[in-house]
Amino acid sequence: MLILLTNDDGIHAPGLLALYRELVKLGDVRVIAPETVQSATGHGITITTPLLTETVTIENGFTGIAVAGRPADCVKLAVAKLLPRQPDLVVSGMNSGANVGINVIYSGTVAAAIEAAFLGLPSIAVSLHLKSEVPLDFVRPAIFGRIAIEQVLKNGLSGGQVANINLPPLHPGQTPPGIKLCRQCTRPWADSYEGRKDPRGREYFWMDTVYKLGDSESDTDVAALRDGYVTITPLQFDLTEQAKLKKWSAGEWKL
Amino acid sequence: MLILLTNDDGIHAPGLLALYRELVKLGDVRVIAPETVQSATGHGITITTPLLTETVTIENGFTGIAVAGRPADCVKLAVAKLLPRQPDLVVSGMNSGANVGINVIYSGTVAAAIEAAFLGLPSIAVSLHLKSEVPLDFVRPAIFGRIAIEQVLKNGLSGGQVANINLPPLHPGQTPPGIKLCRQCTRPWADSYEGRKDPRGREYFWMDTVYKLGDSESDTDVAALRDGYVTITPLQFDLTEQAKLKKWSAGEWKL
Repeated sequence: MLILLTNDDGIHAPGLLALYRELVKLGDVRVIAPETVQSATGHGITITTPLLTETVTIENGFTGIAVAGRPADCVKLAVAKLLPRQPDLVVSGMNSGANVGINVIYSGTVAAAIEAAFLGLPSIAVSLHLKSEVPLDFVRPAIFGRIAIEQVLKNGLSGGQVANINLPPLHPGQTPPGIKLCRQCTRPWADSYEGRKDPRGREYFWMDTVYKLGDSESDTDVAALRDGYVTITPLQFDLTEQAKLKKWSAGEWKL
Repeated sequence: MLILLTNDDGIHAPGLLALYRELVKLGDVRVIAPETVQSATGHGITITTPLLTETVTIENGFTGIAVAGRPADCVKLAVAKLLPRQPDLVVSGMNSGANVGINVIYSGTVAAAIEAAFLGLPSIAVSLHLKSEVPLDFVRPAIFGRIAIEQVLKNGLSGGQVANINLPPLHPGQTPPGIKLCRQCTRPWADSYEGRKDPRGREYFWMDTVYKLGDSESDTDVAALRDGYVTITPLQFDLTEQAKLKKWSAGEWKL
């Protein structure tokens, strides 16, 4: 199995390395990832400037190609030019930070997976929820990330389909209580900004939102991740709101 | 009616000006838009750097606030800090270039509208399809953009709902044959890249995809826009693929 591994935290991110070490148990893993951190870049792509590439050594025996672009660019370029053939699976992650709820829309990690789905490939995004009270560790969560990926493949993931996996932070030796299949929470993230003035009197604003997993209906990714589960949500890229389309189609529309 | 107008082509874009001149017929229009061109930035947002703002005069009697950020940032900041109250409608556009099919996912124009929907507001993205054989004109399409917006409001657009309007290019005096309600085309956009070497031998790639409205099923935004119609598609931001979730939920999942 040829696996393309990418991410949005950049090719030198520890979450990518941890997931790489697990994915090599499943197949031939090629890493093509952004040169720099691309968090919250959403589904941006590079159209008017060239994509510089460079082969980098991550550790002994593990090299990858760094692309000076967005996560979605990495997938496009990998499939069009850099891989020897179409990959059998695209994995994006492991992201440093959860991608649940509306964060899914801002996430470069998820965008890379959705880009792969556009191209007809099966794809999986993997993200790790961080909590200040749990010591930062990517190695143990990556094990459960790989197990969750195996479970997704066993339950069936066709070309064009996306699985969004989120992992809880784990203390040494801790095992999550299980996997929960759940829908994306769609509750808004209430942003706040702090306004300041620069030395010339021009106003500027810092986002001071501290995003925490908030309250949510019990059947969502947010709720299950908060309860410590490994969460899996199948995602689509058809944004048509079918019910509204049907309702509107029955109306009168004229220019 | 308080209308927030933003875009992804930047506050000085002619498409924004043309749409502004039409929207003032509907209400009190406040323009808060990116300082620079933000095409294909998708749903990126600014988290770790401040958002600089500046009041700019677009023309006599028409000023706006330029935000050094992404389209989605403009909506967040406008609603949180810059507007006197919650707007009754958010409009994003008129974009220079169609946002149909999978382009919807890359589009900063659509991202701004979806951001507004997150925040519980009714929102509309407006984009103009460009064709090299039709002389570039934003003024006449903006008239039909405003009419289409009126039709959307008449047919009902609640908070949290998004209408994606695309307009055909128009010759002087030309009128589109009508409005078509349609789904988003989900066919992939086949990218191609041209590889080159820099003077130091490092490989880099230019995207050389020339995106044209391609073949598509007849009930999609791509097909209707190609046929010269004004297209309207209701969009959602819940990415959960419900059918797959149901199927997977019946399976066996273990860690």
